[in-house]
Amino acid sequence: MRKAIFWKLAVLGWSLLIFPLAAPLTAAAPATIRLPPPDRSGGVRLMQAMQERQSSRDFAEGGLSVQQLSDLLWAAGGINRPEEGKSTVPIMTPGSDLIIHALLPDGLYLYDPVDNALLLRQAGDHRALAAGPQAFAAQAPLNVILSSGQKNDTAAGVIVGHSSQNIYLYCASAGLKAVTRMTMDRQGLRDLLKLPEGQRPLLILTVGLKP
Amino acid sequence: MRKAIFWKLAVLGWSLLIFPLAAPLTAAAPATIRLPPPDRSGGVRLMQAMQERQSSRDFAEGGLSVQQLSDLLWAAGGINRPEEGKSTVPIMTPGSDLIIHALLPDGLYLYDPVDNALLLRQAGDHRALAAGPQAFAAQAPLNVILSSGQKNDTAAGVIVGHSSQNIYLYCASAGLKAVTRMTMDRQGLRDLLKLPEGQRPLLILTVGLKP
Repeated sequence: MRKAIFWKLAVLGWSLLIFPLAAPLTAAAPATIRLPPPDRSGGVRLMQAMQERQSSRDFAEGGLSVQQLSDLLWAAGGINRPEEGKSTVPIMTPGSDLIIHALLPDGLYLYDPVDNALLLRQAGDHRALAAGPQAFAAQAPLNVILSSGQKNDTAAGVIVGHSSQNIYLYCASAGLKAVTRMTMDRQGLRDLLKLPEGQRPLLILTVGLKP
Repeated sequence: MRKAIFWKLAVLGWSLLIFPLAAPLTAAAPATIRLPPPDRSGGVRLMQAMQERQSSRDFAEGGLSVQQLSDLLWAAGGINRPEEGKSTVPIMTPGSDLIIHALLPDGLYLYDPVDNALLLRQAGDHRALAAGPQAFAAQAPLNVILSSGQKNDTAAGVIVGHSSQNIYLYCASAGLKAVTRMTMDRQGLRDLLKLPEGQRPLLILTVGLKP
Protein backbone atom coordinates (compact mmCIF):
# COMPACT_ATOMS: atom_id res chain seq x y z
CA MET A 1 0.00 0.00 0.00
CA ARG A 2 2.83 2.38 0.78
CA LYS A 3 4.09 1.86 -2.74
CA ALA A 4 0.63 2.58 -4.15
CA ILE A 5 0.52 5.87 -2.27
CA PHE A 6 4.02 6.70 -3.48
CA TRP A 7 2.97 6.18 -7.07
CA LYS A 8 -0.25 8.10 -6.58
CA LEU A 9 1.78 11.07 -5.32
CA ALA A 10 4.36 10.66 -8.04
CA VAL A 11 1.70 10.57 -10.73
CA LEU A 12 -0.02 13.59 -9.17
CA GLY A 13 3.27 15.47 -9.11
CA TRP A 14 4.00 14.80 -12.75
CA SER A 15 0.43 15.63 -13.70
CA LEU A 16 0.65 19.05 -12.08
CA LEU A 17 3.95 19.67 -13.83
CA ILE A 18 3.03 18.42 -17.29
CA PHE A 19 -0.68 19.01 -17.69
CA PRO A 20 -0.49 22.81 -18.00
CA LEU A 21 2.15 22.44 -20.73
CA ALA A 22 0.81 19.66 -22.94
CA ALA A 23 -1.62 16.78 -22.93
CA PRO A 24 0.31 13.59 -22.17
CA LEU A 25 0.76 11.10 -25.01
CA THR A 26 -0.62 8.33 -22.84
CA ALA A 27 -2.56 8.49 -19.62
CA ALA A 28 -0.39 7.95 -16.57
CA ALA A 29 -0.78 4.56 -14.90
CA PRO A 30 -3.39 4.93 -12.16
CA ALA A 31 -2.50 3.68 -8.69
CA THR A 32 -5.66 1.58 -8.55
CA ILE A 33 -7.93 0.34 -11.31
CA ARG A 34 -11.35 -0.54 -9.92
CA LEU A 35 -12.66 -3.33 -12.12
CA PRO A 36 -16.34 -3.64 -13.03
CA PRO A 37 -18.07 -6.73 -11.60
CA PRO A 38 -17.14 -9.82 -13.63
CA ASP A 39 -19.67 -11.63 -15.79
CA ARG A 40 -20.60 -14.73 -13.77
CA SER A 41 -23.12 -16.29 -16.13
CA GLY A 42 -22.42 -15.50 -19.80
CA GLY A 43 -20.00 -16.42 -22.55
CA VAL A 44 -20.29 -19.22 -25.08
CA ARG A 45 -21.30 -22.71 -23.99
CA LEU A 46 -18.60 -24.64 -22.15
CA MET A 47 -18.02 -27.38 -24.73
CA GLN A 48 -17.83 -24.80 -27.51
CA ALA A 49 -15.14 -22.95 -25.52
CA MET A 50 -13.22 -26.23 -25.20
CA GLN A 51 -13.65 -26.91 -28.92
CA GLU A 52 -12.21 -23.46 -29.70
CA ARG A 53 -9.39 -23.46 -27.14
CA GLN A 54 -6.02 -23.09 -28.81
CA SER A 55 -2.66 -21.35 -28.43
CA SER A 56 -1.95 -18.37 -30.63
CA ARG A 57 0.84 -15.83 -30.86
CA ASP A 58 -0.73 -13.68 -33.56
CA PHE A 59 -2.62 -10.69 -32.28
CA ALA A 60 -4.34 -7.72 -33.90
CA GLU A 61 -3.64 -4.16 -32.76
CA GLY A 62 -5.54 -2.95 -29.73
CA GLY A 63 -6.20 -3.80 -26.11
CA LEU A 64 -8.83 -5.46 -24.00
CA SER A 65 -11.76 -3.55 -22.56
CA VAL A 66 -11.80 -3.10 -18.79
CA GLN A 67 -14.77 -5.48 -18.67
CA GLN A 68 -12.78 -8.14 -20.51
CA LEU A 69 -9.88 -7.57 -18.11
CA SER A 70 -12.21 -8.06 -15.15
CA ASP A 71 -13.78 -11.21 -16.62
CA LEU A 72 -10.42 -12.71 -17.57
CA LEU A 73 -8.84 -12.12 -14.16
CA TRP A 74 -11.89 -13.44 -12.33
CA ALA A 75 -11.66 -16.58 -14.46
CA ALA A 76 -7.92 -16.81 -13.71
CA GLY A 77 -8.42 -16.77 -9.96
CA GLY A 78 -11.28 -14.59 -8.82
CA ILE A 79 -13.67 -15.45 -6.02
CA ASN A 80 -16.80 -17.38 -6.97
CA ARG A 81 -18.02 -18.11 -3.42
CA PRO A 82 -17.50 -14.88 -1.46
CA GLU A 83 -19.00 -16.26 1.76
CA GLU A 84 -16.16 -18.81 1.92
CA GLY A 85 -13.54 -16.79 0.03
CA LYS A 86 -13.25 -19.64 -2.48
CA SER A 87 -12.05 -19.38 -6.02
CA THR A 88 -12.74 -20.29 -9.63
CA VAL A 89 -9.61 -22.51 -9.41
CA PRO A 90 -8.73 -24.97 -6.64
CA ILE A 91 -6.30 -23.34 -4.21
CA MET A 92 -5.60 -24.16 -0.58
CA THR A 93 -4.09 -20.88 0.64
CA PRO A 94 -5.60 -17.73 -0.89
CA GLY A 95 -3.05 -14.98 -1.46
CA SER A 96 -0.10 -17.38 -1.49
CA ASP A 97 -0.88 -20.43 -3.65
CA LEU A 98 -1.76 -18.23 -6.61
CA ILE A 99 -0.68 -14.63 -7.16
CA ILE A 100 -1.83 -12.95 -10.35
CA HIS A 101 -0.22 -9.89 -11.93
CA ALA A 102 -1.50 -8.08 -15.01
CA LEU A 103 1.26 -6.51 -17.07
CA LEU A 104 -0.32 -3.72 -19.11
CA PRO A 105 1.51 -1.39 -21.48
CA ASP A 106 1.50 1.37 -18.83
CA GLY A 107 2.49 -0.65 -15.80
CA LEU A 108 2.56 -3.78 -13.74
CA TYR A 109 -0.47 -4.39 -11.53
CA LEU A 110 -1.31 -6.89 -8.80
CA TYR A 111 -4.78 -8.40 -9.12
CA ASP A 112 -6.71 -8.17 -5.86
CA PRO A 113 -9.50 -10.76 -6.11
CA VAL A 114 -11.14 -9.63 -2.86
CA ASP A 115 -11.60 -5.99 -3.90
CA ASN A 116 -11.78 -6.83 -7.64
CA ALA A 117 -9.13 -4.23 -8.37
CA LEU A 118 -5.71 -3.83 -9.94
CA LEU A 119 -3.05 -2.27 -7.71
CA LEU A 120 -0.13 -0.55 -9.41
CA ARG A 121 3.21 -2.13 -8.51
CA GLN A 122 5.53 -0.62 -11.16
CA ALA A 123 4.62 2.14 -13.60
CA GLY A 124 6.08 2.06 -17.10
CA ASP A 125 6.28 -0.48 -19.89
CA HIS A 126 7.95 -3.64 -18.57
CA ARG A 127 6.73 -5.97 -21.28
CA ALA A 128 10.19 -6.60 -22.74
CA LEU A 129 11.24 -8.24 -19.47
CA ALA A 130 8.19 -10.52 -19.51
CA ALA A 131 8.76 -11.32 -23.18
CA GLY A 132 12.41 -12.30 -23.02
CA PRO A 133 13.37 -13.94 -26.32
CA GLN A 134 9.69 -14.23 -27.32
CA ALA A 135 9.44 -10.73 -28.76
CA PHE A 136 5.78 -10.95 -29.75
CA ALA A 137 4.87 -10.77 -26.05
CA ALA A 138 6.46 -7.31 -25.74
CA GLN A 139 3.81 -6.02 -28.16
CA ALA A 140 0.83 -7.76 -26.56
CA PRO A 141 -1.74 -5.66 -24.70
CA LEU A 142 -1.79 -8.08 -21.76
CA ASN A 143 0.62 -10.47 -20.10
CA VAL A 144 -0.84 -12.27 -17.09
CA ILE A 145 1.92 -13.47 -14.78
CA LEU A 146 0.98 -16.42 -12.56
CA SER A 147 3.11 -16.96 -9.46
CA SER A 148 2.87 -19.39 -6.59
CA GLY A 149 4.20 -19.72 -3.07
CA GLN A 150 3.79 -23.50 -3.17
CA LYS A 151 7.15 -25.09 -2.31
CA ASN A 152 6.47 -28.37 -4.14
CA ASP A 153 7.26 -27.81 -7.83
CA THR A 154 4.59 -30.17 -9.13
CA ALA A 155 1.90 -28.72 -6.85
CA ALA A 156 2.89 -25.19 -7.86
CA GLY A 157 2.63 -26.18 -11.53
CA VAL A 158 -0.76 -27.79 -10.93
CA ILE A 159 -2.15 -24.61 -9.36
CA VAL A 160 -1.04 -22.23 -12.11
CA GLY A 161 -2.06 -24.81 -14.74
CA HIS A 162 -5.68 -24.67 -13.53
CA SER A 163 -5.60 -20.88 -13.74
CA SER A 164 -4.03 -20.91 -17.20
CA GLN A 165 -6.71 -23.20 -18.60
CA ASN A 166 -9.43 -20.83 -17.38
CA ILE A 167 -7.71 -17.94 -19.16
CA TYR A 168 -7.53 -20.00 -22.37
CA LEU A 169 -11.22 -20.84 -22.16
CA TYR A 170 -12.20 -17.25 -21.39
CA CYS A 171 -10.22 -16.08 -24.42
CA ALA A 172 -11.87 -18.71 -26.63
CA SER A 173 -15.26 -17.48 -25.44
CA ALA A 174 -14.49 -13.77 -25.73
CA GLY A 175 -12.84 -13.92 -29.15
CA LEU A 176 -9.38 -13.20 -27.72
CA LYS A 177 -6.14 -15.05 -28.42
CA ALA A 178 -3.72 -16.42 -25.82
CA VAL A 179 -0.63 -18.52 -25.33
CA THR A 180 0.85 -19.84 -22.09
CA ARG A 181 4.62 -19.56 -21.70
CA MET A 182 7.14 -21.01 -19.26
CA THR A 183 10.27 -19.44 -20.78
CA MET A 184 11.06 -16.34 -18.75
CA ASP A 185 13.76 -14.42 -16.90
CA ARG A 186 12.54 -15.76 -13.56
CA GLN A 187 14.91 -13.72 -11.39
CA GLY A 188 14.28 -10.52 -13.32
CA LEU A 189 10.55 -11.03 -13.00
CA ARG A 190 10.80 -11.85 -9.28
CA ASP A 191 12.56 -8.52 -8.79
CA LEU A 192 10.00 -6.63 -10.87
CA LEU A 193 7.08 -8.25 -9.07
CA LYS A 194 8.78 -7.75 -5.69
CA LEU A 195 7.52 -11.16 -4.62
CA PRO A 196 8.07 -12.20 -1.02
CA GLU A 197 10.63 -14.93 -0.36
CA GLY A 198 9.33 -18.31 -1.48
CA GLN A 199 6.98 -17.01 -4.16
CA ARG A 200 8.01 -17.32 -7.80
CA PRO A 201 6.61 -16.59 -11.25
CA LEU A 202 5.84 -19.80 -13.15
CA LEU A 203 3.63 -19.07 -16.14
CA ILE A 204 2.89 -16.09 -18.36
CA LEU A 205 -0.28 -15.94 -20.40
CA THR A 206 0.19 -13.55 -23.29
CA VAL A 207 -3.16 -12.29 -24.51
CA GLY A 208 -4.32 -10.14 -27.42
CA LEU A 209 -7.08 -9.43 -29.86
CA LYS A 210 -8.02 -11.78 -32.69
CA PRO A 211 -6.40 -10.75 -36.00
CA MET B 1 -2.74 -53.89 -28.10
CA ARG B 2 -1.44 -57.35 -27.24
CA LYS B 3 -2.71 -56.83 -23.71
CA ALA B 4 -6.11 -55.77 -25.03
CA ILE B 5 -6.31 -58.99 -27.05
CA PHE B 6 -5.21 -61.00 -24.03
CA TRP B 7 -8.01 -59.54 -21.94
CA LYS B 8 -10.54 -60.00 -24.73
CA LEU B 9 -9.66 -63.72 -24.86
CA ALA B 10 -9.63 -64.00 -21.08
CA VAL B 11 -13.05 -62.38 -20.81
CA LEU B 12 -14.38 -64.60 -23.59
CA GLY B 13 -13.02 -67.71 -21.84
CA TRP B 14 -14.66 -66.80 -18.54
CA SER B 15 -17.91 -65.91 -20.29
CA LEU B 16 -18.10 -69.34 -21.94
CA LEU B 17 -17.40 -71.00 -18.61
CA ILE B 18 -19.74 -68.96 -16.41
CA PHE B 19 -22.63 -67.91 -18.61
CA PRO B 20 -24.26 -71.36 -18.90
CA LEU B 21 -24.18 -71.73 -15.11
CA ALA B 22 -25.41 -68.39 -13.83
CA ALA B 23 -25.81 -64.80 -14.88
CA PRO B 24 -22.76 -62.86 -13.63
CA LEU B 25 -23.36 -60.41 -10.79
CA THR B 26 -21.69 -57.66 -12.82
CA ALA B 27 -20.87 -57.52 -16.48
CA ALA B 28 -17.26 -58.46 -17.21
CA ALA B 29 -15.00 -55.54 -18.07
CA PRO B 30 -14.95 -55.23 -21.86
CA ALA B 31 -11.57 -55.07 -23.56
CA THR B 32 -12.54 -51.90 -25.42
CA ILE B 33 -15.26 -49.38 -24.71
CA ARG B 34 -16.08 -47.39 -27.84
CA LEU B 35 -17.18 -43.97 -26.64
CA PRO B 36 -19.92 -42.00 -28.38
CA PRO B 37 -18.74 -38.77 -30.04
CA PRO B 38 -18.24 -36.05 -27.42
CA ASP B 39 -20.48 -33.02 -27.23
CA ARG B 40 -18.42 -30.20 -28.78
CA SER B 41 -20.88 -27.35 -28.47
CA GLY B 42 -23.23 -27.72 -25.49
CA GLY B 43 -23.19 -27.42 -21.71
CA VAL B 44 -23.88 -24.37 -19.60
CA ARG B 45 -22.33 -21.02 -20.47
CA LEU B 46 -18.63 -20.75 -19.67
CA MET B 47 -18.85 -18.10 -16.93
CA GLN B 48 -21.65 -20.00 -15.23
CA ALA B 49 -19.46 -23.12 -15.19
CA MET B 50 -16.68 -21.06 -13.58
CA GLN B 51 -19.14 -19.63 -11.06
CA GLU B 52 -20.21 -23.17 -10.13
CA ARG B 53 -16.77 -24.81 -10.10
CA GLN B 54 -15.97 -26.25 -6.70
CA SER B 55 -14.35 -29.26 -5.04
CA SER B 56 -16.64 -31.84 -3.50
CA ARG B 57 -16.15 -35.25 -1.91
CA ASP B 58 -19.81 -36.03 -1.37
CA PHE B 59 -21.38 -38.13 -4.06
CA ALA B 60 -24.75 -39.78 -4.55
CA GLU B 61 -25.04 -43.46 -5.52
CA GLY B 62 -24.72 -44.26 -9.20
CA GLY B 63 -22.35 -43.86 -12.11
CA LEU B 64 -21.86 -41.61 -15.11
CA SER B 65 -23.50 -42.35 -18.45
CA VAL B 66 -21.20 -43.39 -21.28
CA GLN B 67 -21.96 -40.04 -22.94
CA GLN B 68 -20.84 -38.19 -19.79
CA LEU B 69 -17.69 -40.31 -19.71
CA SER B 70 -16.95 -39.42 -23.33
CA ASP B 71 -17.58 -35.71 -22.76
CA LEU B 72 -15.51 -35.61 -19.57
CA LEU B 73 -12.51 -37.38 -21.10
CA TRP B 74 -12.63 -35.25 -24.23
CA ALA B 75 -12.58 -32.18 -21.98
CA ALA B 76 -9.69 -33.67 -20.00
CA GLY B 77 -7.50 -34.13 -23.06
CA GLY B 78 -9.43 -35.07 -26.17
CA ILE B 79 -8.68 -33.79 -29.64
CA ASN B 80 -10.44 -30.60 -30.69
CA ARG B 81 -8.51 -30.06 -33.98
CA PRO B 82 -8.23 -33.50 -35.61
CA GLU B 83 -6.44 -32.18 -38.70
CA GLU B 84 -3.51 -31.11 -36.47
CA GLY B 85 -4.00 -33.69 -33.70
CA LYS B 86 -4.30 -30.84 -31.22
CA SER B 87 -6.03 -30.96 -27.90
CA THR B 88 -8.48 -29.24 -25.56
CA VAL B 89 -5.46 -28.62 -23.28
CA PRO B 90 -2.03 -27.26 -24.26
CA ILE B 91 0.40 -30.16 -24.68
CA MET B 92 3.58 -30.34 -26.71
CA THR B 93 3.97 -34.11 -27.15
CA PRO B 94 0.70 -36.03 -27.60
CA GLY B 95 0.73 -39.45 -25.95
CA SER B 96 3.54 -38.55 -23.55
CA ASP B 97 2.88 -35.13 -21.99
CA LEU B 98 -0.56 -36.20 -20.80
CA ILE B 99 -1.76 -39.78 -20.29
CA ILE B 100 -5.31 -40.26 -19.04
CA HIS B 101 -6.65 -43.37 -17.34
CA ALA B 102 -10.24 -43.93 -16.28
CA LEU B 103 -10.57 -46.11 -13.22
CA LEU B 104 -14.08 -47.60 -13.27
CA PRO B 105 -15.52 -50.05 -10.74
CA ASP B 106 -14.89 -52.95 -13.14
CA GLY B 107 -11.45 -52.09 -14.35
CA LEU B 108 -8.69 -49.67 -15.25
CA TYR B 109 -8.84 -48.24 -18.76
CA LEU B 110 -6.48 -46.14 -20.86
CA TYR B 111 -8.20 -43.27 -22.69
CA ASP B 112 -7.32 -43.25 -26.37
CA PRO B 113 -8.12 -39.72 -27.60
CA VAL B 114 -7.44 -40.60 -31.25
CA ASP B 115 -9.95 -43.47 -31.44
CA ASN B 116 -12.18 -42.01 -28.71
CA ALA B 117 -12.13 -45.31 -26.85
CA LEU B 118 -11.23 -46.82 -23.49
CA LEU B 119 -8.77 -49.71 -23.60
CA LEU B 120 -8.83 -52.17 -20.72
CA ARG B 121 -5.52 -52.32 -18.87
CA GLN B 122 -6.47 -54.20 -15.67
CA ALA B 123 -9.82 -55.85 -14.99
CA GLY B 124 -11.21 -55.78 -11.46
CA ASP B 125 -11.89 -53.11 -8.87
CA HIS B 126 -8.65 -51.22 -8.17
CA ARG B 127 -10.24 -48.16 -6.60
CA ALA B 128 -8.82 -48.80 -3.13
CA LEU B 129 -5.31 -48.33 -4.52
CA ALA B 130 -6.26 -45.02 -6.13
CA ALA B 131 -8.03 -43.90 -2.96
CA GLY B 132 -5.25 -44.56 -0.47
CA PRO B 133 -6.20 -42.95 2.83
CA GLN B 134 -8.99 -40.97 1.14
CA ALA B 135 -11.57 -43.76 1.44
CA PHE B 136 -14.41 -41.84 -0.25
CA ALA B 137 -12.56 -42.27 -3.58
CA ALA B 138 -12.82 -46.07 -3.33
CA GLN B 139 -16.61 -45.71 -3.56
CA ALA B 140 -16.65 -43.17 -6.40
CA PRO B 141 -17.88 -44.31 -9.83
CA LEU B 142 -14.94 -42.64 -11.59
CA ASN B 143 -11.34 -41.78 -10.77
CA VAL B 144 -9.47 -40.10 -13.61
CA ILE B 145 -5.72 -40.58 -13.24
CA LEU B 146 -3.59 -37.94 -14.97
CA SER B 147 0.03 -38.88 -15.70
CA SER B 148 2.82 -37.11 -17.53
CA GLY B 149 6.11 -37.99 -19.12
CA GLN B 150 7.38 -34.42 -18.68
CA LYS B 151 10.68 -34.55 -16.79
CA ASN B 152 10.42 -31.03 -15.38
CA ASP B 153 8.21 -31.22 -12.27
CA THR B 154 6.67 -27.78 -12.70
CA ALA B 155 5.92 -28.34 -16.39
CA ALA B 156 4.39 -31.74 -15.60
CA GLY B 157 2.19 -30.11 -12.95
CA VAL B 158 1.18 -27.35 -15.36
CA ILE B 159 0.03 -29.89 -17.97
CA VAL B 160 -2.11 -31.99 -15.65
CA GLY B 161 -3.42 -28.82 -13.98
CA HIS B 162 -4.88 -27.63 -17.30
CA SER B 163 -6.58 -31.00 -17.74
CA SER B 164 -7.90 -31.04 -14.19
CA GLN B 165 -9.54 -27.64 -14.56
CA ASN B 166 -11.39 -28.83 -17.66
CA ILE B 167 -12.73 -31.81 -15.72
CA TYR B 168 -13.89 -29.50 -12.93
CA LEU B 169 -15.67 -27.23 -15.39
CA TYR B 170 -17.26 -30.15 -17.22
CA CYS B 171 -18.55 -31.51 -13.91
CA ALA B 172 -19.93 -28.08 -12.94
CA SER B 173 -21.74 -27.97 -16.27
CA ALA B 174 -23.03 -31.56 -16.20
CA GLY B 175 -24.24 -31.52 -12.59
CA LEU B 176 -21.44 -33.84 -11.44
CA LYS B 177 -19.14 -33.44 -8.46
CA ALA B 178 -15.34 -33.67 -8.50
CA VAL B 179 -12.23 -33.18 -6.43
CA THR B 180 -8.61 -33.18 -7.57
CA ARG B 181 -6.13 -35.07 -5.37
CA MET B 182 -2.35 -35.25 -5.21
CA THR B 183 -2.08 -37.69 -2.30
CA MET B 184 -1.54 -41.14 -3.77
CA ASP B 185 0.56 -44.30 -3.63
CA ARG B 186 2.59 -43.18 -6.64
CA GLN B 187 4.66 -46.37 -7.00
CA GLY B 188 1.63 -48.63 -6.56
CA LEU B 189 -0.23 -46.67 -9.19
CA ARG B 190 2.73 -46.68 -11.59
CA ASP B 191 2.76 -50.48 -11.33
CA LEU B 192 -1.00 -50.74 -11.85
CA LEU B 193 -0.92 -48.39 -14.84
CA LYS B 194 2.18 -50.13 -16.26
CA LEU B 195 3.53 -46.74 -17.27
CA PRO B 196 6.72 -46.65 -19.35
CA GLU B 197 9.88 -45.41 -17.67
CA GLY B 198 9.74 -41.66 -17.12
CA GLN B 199 5.96 -41.36 -16.96
CA ARG B 200 4.29 -40.90 -13.58
CA PRO B 201 0.82 -40.36 -12.14
CA LEU B 202 0.42 -36.87 -10.71
CA LEU B 203 -3.25 -36.06 -10.15
CA ILE B 204 -6.42 -38.04 -9.55
CA LEU B 205 -9.80 -36.48 -10.22
CA THR B 206 -12.44 -38.31 -8.21
CA VAL B 207 -15.86 -37.81 -9.79
CA GLY B 208 -19.40 -38.75 -8.83
CA LEU B 209 -23.04 -37.81 -9.01
CA LYS B 210 -24.52 -34.84 -7.18
CA PRO B 211 -26.16 -35.85 -3.88
